[in-house]
Amino acid sequence: MERLGILGGMGPEATSALFDRIVRFTDAAIDQDHIDIVILNDPSIPDRTAFLLKEEGAKDFTIPLRRMASQLESLGCTVIAMPCSTAHVLIDDIASPLKEAHILNMPQLTAKVAKERGAQKVGILATDGTVRFGLYEQALAEVGICAYLPTPPVQAAVMDVIYGHVKAGIPVPEELTASIFAELEEAECDGAILGCTELSVIGIPDAVDGIMVFDALDVLACESVRACGAKLIERP
Amino acid sequence: MERLGILGGMGPEATSALFDRIVRFTDAAIDQDHIDIVILNDPSIPDRTAFLLKEEGAKDFTIPLRRMASQLESLGCTVIAMPCSTAHVLIDDIASPLKEAHILNMPQLTAKVAKERGAQKVGILATDGTVRFGLYEQALAEVGICAYLPTPPVQAAVMDVIYGHVKAGIPVPEELTASIFAELEEAECDGAILGCTELSVIGIPDAVDGIMVFDALDVLACESVRACGAKLIERP
Repeated sequence: MERLGILGGMGPEATSALFDRIVRFTDAAIDQDHIDIVILNDPSIPDRTAFLLKEEGAKDFTIPLRRMASQLESLGCTVIAMPCSTAHVLIDDIASPLKEAHILNMPQLTAKVAKERGAQKVGILATDGTVRFGLYEQALAEVGICAYLPTPPVQAAVMDVIYGHVKAGIPVPEELTASIFAELEEAECDGAILGCTELSVIGIPDAVDGIMVFDALDVLACESVRACGAKLIERP
Repeated sequence: MERLGILGGMGPEATSALFDRIVRFTDAAIDQDHIDIVILNDPSIPDRTAFLLKEEGAKDFTIPLRRMASQLESLGCTVIAMPCSTAHVLIDDIASPLKEAHILNMPQLTAKVAKERGAQKVGILATDGTVRFGLYEQALAEVGICAYLPTPPVQAAVMDVIYGHVKAGIPVPEELTASIFAELEEAECDGAILGCTELSVIGIPDAVDGIMVFDALDVLACESVRACGAKLIERP
């Protein structure tokens, strides 16, 4: 089996959620059936969005990530996962010092799953930053899926779920998520990508009003297990 | 802040649960308030109980743990946590190659918390192996607390919770945990130690029938946060 490295700390909650899902999604009867993982959870990595938007004083987050990626490789990791959508904008820079290891591309893998499941028009639910950098839009375009970006009031509702509720520790009212999916339904989407960990942890089901839900963190967890050669449970 | 190292993989679920609690117990408004953590989750570490009981063919689990502890130190970790009660039987061997880093002693820290909370007679709920090696019994004795070991039928009930239910993915019937605490109450215990991760994850409350519950994994998570210099939330 391959050893997995996790470029973590962006944020620690997302890193912990990925680890938890990898363990739960592995079909294991004994400890030894699980994959070997090295997690570098460095919460001091500079803000990704601020740097990408060239905000004053923002620091280059790719510098520590390149160093950490090299460290993971020298610790024997051949597969690397990065549970932060936004950081994927500069995935090639981050992977540049790697000799043999490769970084799993979360947006591309998620788009691939949407394609396999037959989605044709997929809504992107993510932070303003991730939406603005066109990460999931581009990944969907590459597999021939039409991306739908929420209108400003619904994008504001997505941000309200993430910042006003999940990050603030306040339960998300059902009406709020319902209003988001109502727009996707009106726009005739048959799929939705949860492209932000905060959306991954609130228990949105696999399908809402007939819209298939593709959780990027779930996809990354499954691919981590598979790429390292362990067995996935039947229905992660 | 100090960097924490986690000697993990024994099992991966316990390691993931410790990471999750460290993140949740940290009083953080931003990512940077969290502690920097390196996790080595190696599920191939040989079975601890088998080696300690000198079972035929059992391998020395301290060999990989010594190597991993050194690796954590060379990665800059000064505080090390080991989320496996049984492995603590040989904690001094495992720590022997360390120059400056130290391993948090989960049983001793748990006994200290019981002492601080004023417990006088504490029941030990753990696997047959952990009970047999006297880990928590000794740690309690060191702080002047009387340890209570369940009678064989109740020890069997504890093992049934751990192996027959939690590890097997079957919900734990309330009567089962109730029968365990009923004996502790009869024996006039004012405290109980959850000395096995499987018992940490089933949602036993902080107090049962007036018996204070001391969860070893919770204690280790709190001490990890504190020892690394981060702030704990008010009531972890």
